[in-house]
Amino acid sequence: MLWRHKRRSSCSWRVRIAFALKGIEYEQKPVNLIKDGGQQLTDQFKAINPMQQVPAVTIDGITLSQSLAIIQYIEETRPEPRLLPADPKQRGQVRIICDIIASGIQPLQNLYVLQKIGAEKVQWAQHFINRGFEALEPILKQTAGKYCVGDEISMADICLVPQVYNAERFKVDMSQFPTIRRLNQTLTEIDAFKVSHPSCQPDTPDDLKA
Amino acid sequence: MLWRHKRRSSCSWRVRIAFALKGIEYEQKPVNLIKDGGQQLTDQFKAINPMQQVPAVTIDGITLSQSLAIIQYIEETRPEPRLLPADPKQRGQVRIICDIIASGIQPLQNLYVLQKIGAEKVQWAQHFINRGFEALEPILKQTAGKYCVGDEISMADICLVPQVYNAERFKVDMSQFPTIRRLNQTLTEIDAFKVSHPSCQPDTPDDLKA
Repeated sequence: MLWRHKRRSSCSWRVRIAFALKGIEYEQKPVNLIKDGGQQLTDQFKAINPMQQVPAVTIDGITLSQSLAIIQYIEETRPEPRLLPADPKQRGQVRIICDIIASGIQPLQNLYVLQKIGAEKVQWAQHFINRGFEALEPILKQTAGKYCVGDEISMADICLVPQVYNAERFKVDMSQFPTIRRLNQTLTEIDAFKVSHPSCQPDTPDDLKA
Repeated sequence: MLWRHKRRSSCSWRVRIAFALKGIEYEQKPVNLIKDGGQQLTDQFKAINPMQQVPAVTIDGITLSQSLAIIQYIEETRPEPRLLPADPKQRGQVRIICDIIASGIQPLQNLYVLQKIGAEKVQWAQHFINRGFEALEPILKQTAGKYCVGDEISMADICLVPQVYNAERFKVDMSQFPTIRRLNQTLTEIDAFKVSHPSCQPDTPDDLKA
C-alpha cells in the first residue's frame, strides 16, 4: 500500500519544507517504517527519538523531535524568512491552524494508528481528515489571503500541504473544501514545497517519482 | 471568557493552569460534552470554535481555540512569569514534551475518539498513554530539574499534569514512570495547579469535589 512507504511521513515533509524555505542545507537519513519490522523501533533510533517516530533532527549539537518543535527551534535560531507573523493575533491564527492539523488530524491517521485500527482504516482516516477539514475550511476562509494567514507563507502553510496530500491519498472529496484546495494549489507551485515533496527525495523509488 | 468542558477536558485544564500562573482573571463558560448530545456541537458553539472542541478563549477582541495556541498567545502578550525558557535549546525541549503530549497522547484518548473505539476504549487509552509515557520518561530524566525542564515552571509542566490525571483515571501503572510521577507530585502541590484542578471548578458536582 502506498501510504506505508518510508518516504511518506507528512511530519518529515513539514520539516523539509521549513528547511527549504529558510535555505538550510541538510543531510537526510531515511528510516524505513516497514522494513525489518520498522527501523524506527531499533534501539539505535530510540536513542535519537524515544517516541520512535520520524522526523528527528540533529542541529547545533542537540537532537530534536516533534516536527512543530523542530520548526519553531529553527524559526527562533534562523529567523529569516520568518514563518510566524510579527503580530501576536496573527501568530495565534497560524498556531490554531497548525494545532488543528498536528493534534486534531494527523495523529489520528498516521501509520501506527491505522495499523491498530485494521480493516476499517480507510474509513477511519477519511472520517478524521473530513472532520478536521470541516473545521479548517471556515477558519481559512476568514484568515487566508494568498496563503493560509494573509499574504505571507507561515507554519500553517507548512502543515496544510502535507495534510492535503494525505487527504488525497485517502480519497477525501476535496471539492467540499474550496479554500483548502485553492491554498494547496498555490502552495504546491512554490519551489520549497516542490523540492521537499515525497516524490522528489533521494530514495524515492522510480515508479513513484514525479 | 474561557469556554471549557464541564470538568474533564485536560486541554481546558492546561489553559486554566496558564491563566492561574500568569494571574489572569477570567470568566468561565462550561460546555457540557455529553448533555443534549454534546453542547459543543451546537451552531452557537461552532461559530466560536469550528473544531467543536473545548477550550476556546475570547480575549483582546479575538477568539482562540487549541490549548497550546491559546497559551502561546498569552505568553506572547503577557510575558510574566514566563512559561517558555529564554534559551532556544531549552525552549525546544519544552516544546518536544508539549507536542508528545498534545499530538502523541491526548488526541488518541480524548472523549470523541474513545466513543468511536467503543468497547475496547479503556485498553486503547491505556495503550496510547503508556506508549507516550515510555517516550517521555527518558526525555524528562534528562531535562528535568525541579520541574520538567530545569527549575522553572513551563508549558511542559502545564501539559504534563492533566495528562497524568487522565492516566490515573484510566488506571495506567504509574510506577513504571518514576520521573513523571515525581514531577507530578511536585507540581500538584503548587497553587496554580490546585485551583485549576477539575475537582475545584464552580460547577464540579459534589461527588467529584476534592
